[in-house]
Amino acid sequence: MTLDAYRITDEPYYRPAGEEIAIFEAAWRERLPVMLKGPTGCGKTRFIEHMAWKLKVPLITVACHEDMTASDLVGRYLIDETGTVWHDGPLTLAVRHGAICYLDEVVETRQDTTVVIHPLTDARRILPLEKHNELVRAHPDFQLVISYNPGYQSAIKDLKESTKQRFCAIGFDYPSHEVEAAIVAQEAHVAPEIARQLVAIGTRSRNLEGHGLAEGASTRMLVHTGRLISQGLPMGQAVDTAIVMPVTDEPDVRAALSAAVQACMNP
Amino acid sequence: MTLDAYRITDEPYYRPAGEEIAIFEAAWRERLPVMLKGPTGCGKTRFIEHMAWKLKVPLITVACHEDMTASDLVGRYLIDETGTVWHDGPLTLAVRHGAICYLDEVVETRQDTTVVIHPLTDARRILPLEKHNELVRAHPDFQLVISYNPGYQSAIKDLKESTKQRFCAIGFDYPSHEVEAAIVAQEAHVAPEIARQLVAIGTRSRNLEGHGLAEGASTRMLVHTGRLISQGLPMGQAVDTAIVMPVTDEPDVRAALSAAVQACMNP
Amino acid sequence: MTLDAYRITDEPYYRPAGEEIAIFEAAWRERLPVMLKGPTGCGKTRFIEHMAWKLKVPLITVACHEDMTASDLVGRYLIDETGTVWHDGPLTLAVRHGAICYLDEVVETRQDTTVVIHPLTDARRILPLEKHNELVRAHPDFQLVISYNPGYQSAIKDLKESTKQRFCAIGFDYPSHEVEAAIVAQEAHVAPEIARQLVAIGTRSRNLEGHGLAEGASTRMLVHTGRLISQGLPMGQAVDTAIVMPVTDEPDVRAALSAAVQACMNP
Amino acid sequence: MTLDAYRITDEPYYRPAGEEIAIFEAAWRERLPVMLKGPTGCGKTRFIEHMAWKLKVPLITVACHEDMTASDLVGRYLIDETGTVWHDGPLTLAVRHGAICYLDEVVETRQDTTVVIHPLTDARRILPLEKHNELVRAHPDFQLVISYNPGYQSAIKDLKESTKQRFCAIGFDYPSHEVEAAIVAQEAHVAPEIARQLVAIGTRSRNLEGHGLAEGASTRMLVHTGRLISQGLPMGQAVDTAIVMPVTDEPDVRAALSAAVQACMNP
Amino acid sequence: MTLDAYRITDEPYYRPAGEEIAIFEAAWRERLPVMLKGPTGCGKTRFIEHMAWKLKVPLITVACHEDMTASDLVGRYLIDETGTVWHDGPLTLAVRHGAICYLDEVVETRQDTTVVIHPLTDARRILPLEKHNELVRAHPDFQLVISYNPGYQSAIKDLKESTKQRFCAIGFDYPSHEVEAAIVAQEAHVAPEIARQLVAIGTRSRNLEGHGLAEGASTRMLVHTGRLISQGLPMGQAVDTAIVMPVTDEPDVRAALSAAVQACMNP
Amino acid sequence: MTLDAYRITDEPYYRPAGEEIAIFEAAWRERLPVMLKGPTGCGKTRFIEHMAWKLKVPLITVACHEDMTASDLVGRYLIDETGTVWHDGPLTLAVRHGAICYLDEVVETRQDTTVVIHPLTDARRILPLEKHNELVRAHPDFQLVISYNPGYQSAIKDLKESTKQRFCAIGFDYPSHEVEAAIVAQEAHVAPEIARQLVAIGTRSRNLEGHGLAEGASTRMLVHTGRLISQGLPMGQAVDTAIVMPVTDEPDVRAALSAAVQACMNP
Repeated sequence: MTLDAYRITDEPYYRPAGEEIAIFEAAWRERLPVMLKGPTGCGKTRFIEHMAWKLKVPLITVACHEDMTASDLVGRYLIDETGTVWHDGPLTLAVRHGAICYLDEVVETRQDTTVVIHPLTDARRILPLEKHNELVRAHPDFQLVISYNPGYQSAIKDLKESTKQRFCAIGFDYPSHEVEAAIVAQEAHVAPEIARQLVAIGTRSRNLEGHGLAEGASTRMLVHTGRLISQGLPMGQAVDTAIVMPVTDEPDVRAALSAAVQACMNP
Repeated sequence: MTLDAYRITDEPYYRPAGEEIAIFEAAWRERLPVMLKGPTGCGKTRFIEHMAWKLKVPLITVACHEDMTASDLVGRYLIDETGTVWHDGPLTLAVRHGAICYLDEVVETRQDTTVVIHPLTDARRILPLEKHNELVRAHPDFQLVISYNPGYQSAIKDLKESTKQRFCAIGFDYPSHEVEAAIVAQEAHVAPEIARQLVAIGTRSRNLEGHGLAEGASTRMLVHTGRLISQGLPMGQAVDTAIVMPVTDEPDVRAALSAAVQACMNP
Repeated sequence: MTLDAYRITDEPYYRPAGEEIAIFEAAWRERLPVMLKGPTGCGKTRFIEHMAWKLKVPLITVACHEDMTASDLVGRYLIDETGTVWHDGPLTLAVRHGAICYLDEVVETRQDTTVVIHPLTDARRILPLEKHNELVRAHPDFQLVISYNPGYQSAIKDLKESTKQRFCAIGFDYPSHEVEAAIVAQEAHVAPEIARQLVAIGTRSRNLEGHGLAEGASTRMLVHTGRLISQGLPMGQAVDTAIVMPVTDEPDVRAALSAAVQACMNP
Repeated sequence: MTLDAYRITDEPYYRPAGEEIAIFEAAWRERLPVMLKGPTGCGKTRFIEHMAWKLKVPLITVACHEDMTASDLVGRYLIDETGTVWHDGPLTLAVRHGAICYLDEVVETRQDTTVVIHPLTDARRILPLEKHNELVRAHPDFQLVISYNPGYQSAIKDLKESTKQRFCAIGFDYPSHEVEAAIVAQEAHVAPEIARQLVAIGTRSRNLEGHGLAEGASTRMLVHTGRLISQGLPMGQAVDTAIVMPVTDEPDVRAALSAAVQACMNP
Repeated sequence: MTLDAYRITDEPYYRPAGEEIAIFEAAWRERLPVMLKGPTGCGKTRFIEHMAWKLKVPLITVACHEDMTASDLVGRYLIDETGTVWHDGPLTLAVRHGAICYLDEVVETRQDTTVVIHPLTDARRILPLEKHNELVRAHPDFQLVISYNPGYQSAIKDLKESTKQRFCAIGFDYPSHEVEAAIVAQEAHVAPEIARQLVAIGTRSRNLEGHGLAEGASTRMLVHTGRLISQGLPMGQAVDTAIVMPVTDEPDVRAALSAAVQACMNP
Repeated sequence: MTLDAYRITDEPYYRPAGEEIAIFEAAWRERLPVMLKGPTGCGKTRFIEHMAWKLKVPLITVACHEDMTASDLVGRYLIDETGTVWHDGPLTLAVRHGAICYLDEVVETRQDTTVVIHPLTDARRILPLEKHNELVRAHPDFQLVISYNPGYQSAIKDLKESTKQRFCAIGFDYPSHEVEAAIVAQEAHVAPEIARQLVAIGTRSRNLEGHGLAEGASTRMLVHTGRLISQGLPMGQAVDTAIVMPVTDEPDVRAALSAAVQACMNP
C-alpha cells in the first residue's frame, strides 16, 4: 500500500491569520512534533490539510476517542479472508512510509496511546512494534501533529506534562471579521453582504459564551447557514436551523440568542 | 446486498406541523447532516420515514444504545458458515450505496461512535474503514440524520459541542389537538369523537408533567388506547391499561391522573 | 427447531382476580406489547402461562439479569461440534416462528436489550439481525410481554419513559383471602382449614412490610409451608422453615413475625 | 460421566443440634429448595455432606465467588484436545443426572447466577441451556441447596427477596459445649479433658466478638489446635498458632484474647 | 513434568528467631495450611525456602497480584505450537505431584482465588478442575502456605474471616541486632564491624516509621548497602543509594533520615 | 533474534552532574536493581543510554502505561502468518539474552507488572513464564532499571514499599546553568550566547513552578527552541512556540511567563 491515497491534490482553501505558516514550516524542517491549540471549528483541520498540500507530504488523520487503544494506532494481526496478516495502523503507515500523522483531539485517548508516541517525539524517532517483533525507524518525511482544545480539558483528562513538553505549539482562534466573511462567501456561495451579516451573527453568538451558551457559532455553522440560504430558505429560518437550534436546549438562552440574531438582521 | 429492502414503498402517514418538510429538503439538497430534536413519541421516526419515502432514498435506521461500539456501525470481520468475511455495518452500507442513515438517540452511544461520524459530516464526506484497509467516499445520496431528546441529556451524557455544531437541527413537539385527533382516528380506527376525547386526555396528562409524571401520554399511547377500545374494552379500562398503568407507579400520581382522565370522559 | 417444546399442554391452575384475562385478550388481538406489573410471587408468571395455554400459542420465557446482552436475546454465531452456525436467541425464535416472548424482570438488563425490542413494539414489528445480515419481520402470532416489579426500581435502574410508553400495562397484587386459600389447598394438598390458617399468617406478615420486613410472605411461601405440613412437620416448624427463617435475619424482626404467626395459630 | 465420584461412601461425622435432620428430610421428600443459614465454620458443609450420605444421593458442591458467571454453573463449549465439545457445568450435571447441588456462599455471585436457578426452584424445575439449544428437565433426585451467612451480607450484596422466597431455610449456630467437645476429641485425637479446655477457650473468644474480634474461634479452629497438640506442641503455643494469630492483627485485641485464653488454661 | 526444578538443593541461609521451625514442622506433619505473618523483607520468603529444603519437599512460589485469576493458579487450556493442550497451573502442579505451594501476598488476589483454595484447606483436600472435568485429590506431600502483611490490609481488601480461620499462623518480625548483623556480614561479604554499623542504621530508620516514613530499612536493604560498600563506594554514598533515596521523596523526611544515619556513622 | 539491534553504537552525549556514573557502575557490578528518580526531561533516559553504551550492554527500553499487562512484558503466544508461536516480551528478551531492561515510568503500570519483577530483584534472579511452562534464570548480564518521577505519584498510584525496597536509587535534577548551556548549544547548533539566554529563560520558568505552572521548561524544550532559532525564527517566536504555548492554557499564567521571558531577552 502506498500513501498516494493520502496525498492532497487540490489546494484546500485557507486564509492565514498570522505567522502560523512560517512557524509550522520551521518546525517541519526540524521535524519537530507540533500541537495545534484552539477552539472547535476554527480551522485547525483545514490548516493541517493546507500545510500537507503545500509541503507535498501525505496526511493521515486519526480522529481520537476514549476507546482507542495503542493497537488501533500501531497495528495488529487481523484474520481476514486470506488468513492471519499483520496490518499496519495509521500511525505505523505514516512512520514507515513518510507522512504527517495528525492525531485529532489526542487528549481523548487513553494513556497507552500517548506513551506510544513518546519515542517518536525525541531524538530516537523510533516506533517499536512489539507484537510484530519489529522496530520501525521513522521515514525522513514523518512528522507528528496533534490537536488540543484547551477549553475541553479537565483535571482528570489532560495531557501529561511529560507529553506536552515534547511538542511545539501553535495557537488558533476565530478568524477576523473580514477573513471570516471571505471564507463564508467562498464556501457557501452567497453574496458578500449576506456573508458579512452572518459573520455579525456569529460574533454576537460568541459574546453569549459563558452566558448559557457553551460555545458560540463556529465558522462552519456560518457556512452551513449560508448553504441553506443558497437553497432558498429565508435567512431567519436558515439561522434558526443551522445556528440557534443545534446549540441551545434552554428556552431563555434560545430567546437571548434569537434576539441577538434579530438585531443583526435588522440593523 | 442492495439497499432495496430499505426502500419505503408505501407512503407513511404524516401530518406536518410547520415548515419541517421544506427545511429538511433544503438540507437534503446540500446533503447537510440533520438533527431531529424533540420529546419521546412525538413523531420523529415517522417524519424521517416520510421524508425517505418522499425523496425516494433508502432509509437505514439504527437504534443506538450505550453498549454500541464503532464496529457495530462501521462493520467487522465475522466468522460465519463460509469462513471469515468482511461485514459492512449499517452506517457503511448507507455511505457506500447511498441512503439516509438515521441514528436514533445517538447520545446513548459512546464517544467512539460520534468520532466515527465526524469525517462524514464535513467537507470530506469520507468513512475510513481502518480494519478493512479502505477509505470509503460517501455515495452522492448519503445523508446522516440523528435524533436527540433534550429532556434526556445530563451533564455526563451529552453530545459534545464539536459534534452538535456539525448538524442542522429541526425541532419537533406534540402535534396540535386537531392534527393529533386526526392521527388517532386514522391509526386506531376509532370514531372522531372518541379520538378527540383521547386527545383531551393526552393533553391533561401532559399538564401533569413535572408534578409527579416524568412525561405525559404520547400520541403513540393515545393510539394504543384507541386500539383497545376498537377491540371492545370500555374507554375507562382502555385508558387505564394503555396510559395510566404504564407511566405511574405512585398511588397518588395515579389518582391525580385518573381524576384528570375522569374529567375528560364526563365533561 | 419448531416451538412445540414451548407449547403448554396442561392447563396451568390460575384463579383470576379481576378483568385481567379480558384485557390481555384485547391486547393480544391487537398484538400490543404488554407489561405485567406487581410484587414478587403474586402470580405473574402463572398468569402468562395460563394465557399462553388459553390462546394456544407457544411461550418462551427469558429470566433477565444485568449481565444479559442483546446477543443473548437475539442470537449469535456459535462454534459447536459441527463448526460455526448461527444460533437464534430466544427472542428471535419467538419473532420468527410466532410465540409470546416473556421477558421476566426486564429492568435488570442493560439498555442494549431494551433498545433491541423497540422496533418490535411499534408499527414496524421488525427485528434487525445485523450480524446475520437479516431483517426478520415478526410472525403474526408474535407478542412481546414483560414483567415489572415497581417496588424494585430505583433512580439508576428503571425502564426509560420511551420504553414504558410502548406497553399496555396490567396490574397484579396478592389474591383475595378466599382465592389464596383455594390456591394453597390445591397446590399443597392440605385441608381447607389449614390453608385458611396459612393465608391468615401470610396476611399478618404482609402487614409487617416496612416494619423491618422487606416483603411479606408470598403465595408461593404459603404453598411451601403447606407442602412441609403434608410431609408431617408440625405447623410451627413448617412456618418457621418456609416463612420466618427465609425472610428475616434480625432477631427482633424474627420475634415480631413469630408472635404474629403464633397469634394466627392459636386464635 | 456418571456422578459416582460425587457419592459419599463413608459416613461423615455429624452431631445434630436440633430437628435439622427431620426438617431437611421433609424438604427433600418435596424436593423443596433449602437454604442453610449460619456463621462461618459451624458445620453447614458437614451437615449437607451427612445428609447426602444419609439420603444416598450424590453431592456436587460449588464454592461461589464474585467472578463466577452463569456459564461456570451451567456449562459452555470448550475447545479441548478433541475439538469443540459441550461441557456441562456442575449445576447441569446435578440437574441432568440427579444430585444435590450445594451452592456455598451463593450471595457472592453475580445476579445472572441467581436468575439461572429461578426456574429450577418453582413448579417448572427446568434449566434452559440456551447456547446448547436444550431445555433440561430436572431429574427426580435433583435438589438445590444454598448456604447463606447473614453476618456477611450488606446493603449492596444480598440475595434478592424474590430469590430468598423460593427457599426453605434451616438455621445453624455453634454446637453446645458438650457436642463441640465430642467433635474436637473425635477429630483431633485428643483426650476429652483437653477437648473441654479447648471448647472453653473457643467460648471465651466468641464472647469477644464485636469487641475488636470480627468472629470468635470456630469449631474448625479448635480442631486445628487439638491436632497441633497431638503433634507435641504445648497447648499455649498451639492455641497461639491456630487461634490467636490467625484472627487478630491488633496488639491489644491479641492481648485481650491471650488473657482470656490464659484464664481457661489455668482455671 | 516432574517437580525436580522446584527442589531446593543448597541450604538457604536462615537464622531462626524463635520456635518457628518447630511450629511449622508440627503443622507440616498434620498438613495444616499455614499463614506467615509479618512486615516486608523480614525473611518470610527465606524461611519457607529453608523449610522446603529441610523437609525435602519441592516449593512452588506464586507472587499474587490483583489481576490474578483462579485460572492463573489452577490451569487452563492453552493453544501452543502443538494445538490445544491442558496446562496445569502452579497450584495444580503442587496438589497433583506433592509440593508446598507458597502464595505470596495472597490478599492481593481477587476472591475467586481464595475460594479455590477452600476445599484444599479442610478435610476434603480436593481441587476441582471444572473445565478439565477432573477432581484432583491432593498428593500426601501437598501443603498450602500463604504470606500476609497485616500492615498492608485495608477495610476493602482483606482476607475474609472464613478464609483466615482455615490457617495456622506464624508471626515474623525483624531479627535481633546480633542475628541481623550476622546475616548482613554473610550475604554482603563485609566486615562484622561494618555489618553492625549498618544494623544500627537500620534500627534508627525503623524508629522513624510513622514519622514520615512508611517503613524502615529492611534487612534486604542493609545487605544491598553492604554490597555497594564491598564494590568500593564510601559508606555514606552506599547508605544514600540503597536506603535513603529509595524510601523517601520528601526533603525533610530525607533530612531526618540522613541525620539519623550520620549519627550512626560517627558515633 | 539477537539483541544486536539494542546495542548503542554511538556515544550518546551526556554531561555528568555528580557521582551518578560511579554509583551506577558499582550497582551494575553487583547487578543490583536501580531506580532513577527525578523530574520530567532532566536526562534520565539519556543517562541510561550513556551507561548502556559505556558498559557495552544492550538496552531494552519499555515505556510503561496503565493498560500494560504482565504479558506485555513477559510474552505471549501469538497467532501470526506461520501459526501459533511463543513470543518473548521485552523483559524476557533482556533476562534470557543479557541486557539492561529499562522500565520507564513503571509506576504507571498495574500491580501484576510490579509483581512480575520481584523474583528478578532478589537473590533468585528468575522469571517464571507460567504459560510457556518455563522458568528462565537471568543471564549474567541482565540488570533491571526503572525510572520514577516523585512529583507524579499520588496516594492511589505509587510503588508499593515492598517494591521500592528492592531497588538502589540515584537522584537526578536539572543540570547546572553551565552544563545545560553546553547541552543546548551542542544539540540545537546555536551560538553559546543564545544557549545561555535560553538557559536563563528556562531557569525563570522553573521559578514559576507552583505559581500556575505545573512544570518549568525542561532541557528538551530549550533545545527545541534553539532548533527553531537555527531555522530562522526570531527568538521571541521560537520561545513562544516551544516553551510558552505548550505549557500554559491560562492567559495570566501565559502573561507572567512571557514577562519573565521578555526580561531574559532584554537584560
